[in-house]
Amino acid sequence: MIKMEKYLRKIGNEIWFTEVDRDNLKLDYRIKDIIYSENSLLQQIMVLDSYDFGRMLVLDGAIQTTALDGYIYNEMIAHIPLNTHPNPKNVLIIGGGDCGAAREVAKYSNIDRIDMVEIDEQVVNVCKDYLPEVSGDLSDPRVNFIFEDGTTFVKDKRDYLYDVIIVDSSDPVGPAVKLYELEFYKDLYANLNKDGLMVCQSESPIFYSETMINIYKHLNSLFPIVKMYMATVPTYPGGFWTFTMGSKKYWKPNPDKFDKDTLYINKEIIKSCFAIPEFIKRLLDMN
Amino acid sequence: MIKMEKYLRKIGNEIWFTEVDRDNLKLDYRIKDIIYSENSLLQQIMVLDSYDFGRMLVLDGAIQTTALDGYIYNEMIAHIPLNTHPNPKNVLIIGGGDCGAAREVAKYSNIDRIDMVEIDEQVVNVCKDYLPEVSGDLSDPRVNFIFEDGTTFVKDKRDYLYDVIIVDSSDPVGPAVKLYELEFYKDLYANLNKDGLMVCQSESPIFYSETMINIYKHLNSLFPIVKMYMATVPTYPGGFWTFTMGSKKYWKPNPDKFDKDTLYINKEIIKSCFAIPEFIKRLLDMN
Repeated sequence: MIKMEKYLRKIGNEIWFTEVDRDNLKLDYRIKDIIYSENSLLQQIMVLDSYDFGRMLVLDGAIQTTALDGYIYNEMIAHIPLNTHPNPKNVLIIGGGDCGAAREVAKYSNIDRIDMVEIDEQVVNVCKDYLPEVSGDLSDPRVNFIFEDGTTFVKDKRDYLYDVIIVDSSDPVGPAVKLYELEFYKDLYANLNKDGLMVCQSESPIFYSETMINIYKHLNSLFPIVKMYMATVPTYPGGFWTFTMGSKKYWKPNPDKFDKDTLYINKEIIKSCFAIPEFIKRLLDMN
Repeated sequence: MIKMEKYLRKIGNEIWFTEVDRDNLKLDYRIKDIIYSENSLLQQIMVLDSYDFGRMLVLDGAIQTTALDGYIYNEMIAHIPLNTHPNPKNVLIIGGGDCGAAREVAKYSNIDRIDMVEIDEQVVNVCKDYLPEVSGDLSDPRVNFIFEDGTTFVKDKRDYLYDVIIVDSSDPVGPAVKLYELEFYKDLYANLNKDGLMVCQSESPIFYSETMINIYKHLNSLFPIVKMYMATVPTYPGGFWTFTMGSKKYWKPNPDKFDKDTLYINKEIIKSCFAIPEFIKRLLDMN
């Protein structure tokens, strides 16, 4: 039995995990079993088996993805840009250690190269071993794992550029902060082909609206086309989640071309996910 | 100072409210102040002022609506049917004690009559007094408050029928159970004009999928047209929320006609809210 971590507590015979990332709202999940709990060089990594959400990846006390709904986030961050770009060949994923985004990208046979740059190798190994519901035990030979800081990786020169870049980052605290700065987006722009596009998760419009607004402004200062889209992700507080796409050329998704086997996204969702509620339009001065 | 109720606890100087409606997932909200806490003849009623969601209406320990996001649910349950019916004159609301749905319905000057049937008068009074962010201190003379069990009301005969019926019920526990039975939907059908339509909140596709499926089946057994639509409501666990519409004639919303002042819904949301994620389509055998 792994010793109880600081995020877990025992009440009678029950184990409860409390998410600690917010001061005034706490979510308590009843846990069946602690599958994995270790410190990597960078963070505390747990895989917990929960009653309501199945297995969950928890980094430094914050839930990253779950067996129940991980596919929603991963399908939305991967298929919307890949459906919008007419012919992506080289794809870069930054972050996404749970391998769920890479798994979705690998559904496209026309893609030649999938570079996945994740700062913490241990997260990838743990997810492959203990969270196959999300990682899919990813073994596609096109996926090139690079264990490095994403902000450093995009500073280096390569002899090829990307068609699509996906930034699948954790919240803007700790090591991920640099992934929310203008400097980083400039480097992404430089790594994209002249008709390339990028997407990043841009947080909750309710609980992290400042982050969302900053990302939108940063991308607007760099790309001729910026579009936001939305999904409901039950394990993220408030459910509401935004993604922001910066593009050099393409802006229209091609829902009729979509033919992948998925659990959330379909042609109708691709058509509709760019509809932005009025309060978010006002936050972004979109009207 | 009102005495601490069983749903509240003090930790140091902080007051926390724990939602008790689920066994394996608990949401704890930090509370600034207990605004109101009394038992009506039917239920325990609280208005709490929370840090993250502002004032919240809590019935028997379950959050019904909040100042932060109450408008999302109320706009979606009111405007989608009223935008779909080309010329509603008589509207019936069943439940909706927070008055938020009635407030949205009252934005339509072409509507002559708004009957609002709520079982607990005290909820309406409390929301008018202590939750004006949701109730809007509703004083429109067209709103006819009837404090009665909704299932009894629709058994009686009146000399007029309704164009639109909105069922704004609490979860299928306790007194609200009858609002989820086929018998009740049959009575709604009988109370609708020959081109009338009804809508009900049909719960979470993740945590109450059986309820959602039952409502969809019941309405399909009665109405020639049944459509489901969705919104993200941050204060409901998982965020995902479904609404199901049963209609005798009209099925197409008219987004271009929409001209109300709202915070969530707009033309694009009206067009897009009927897009159903793949996993829900599978639950409902829609494919």
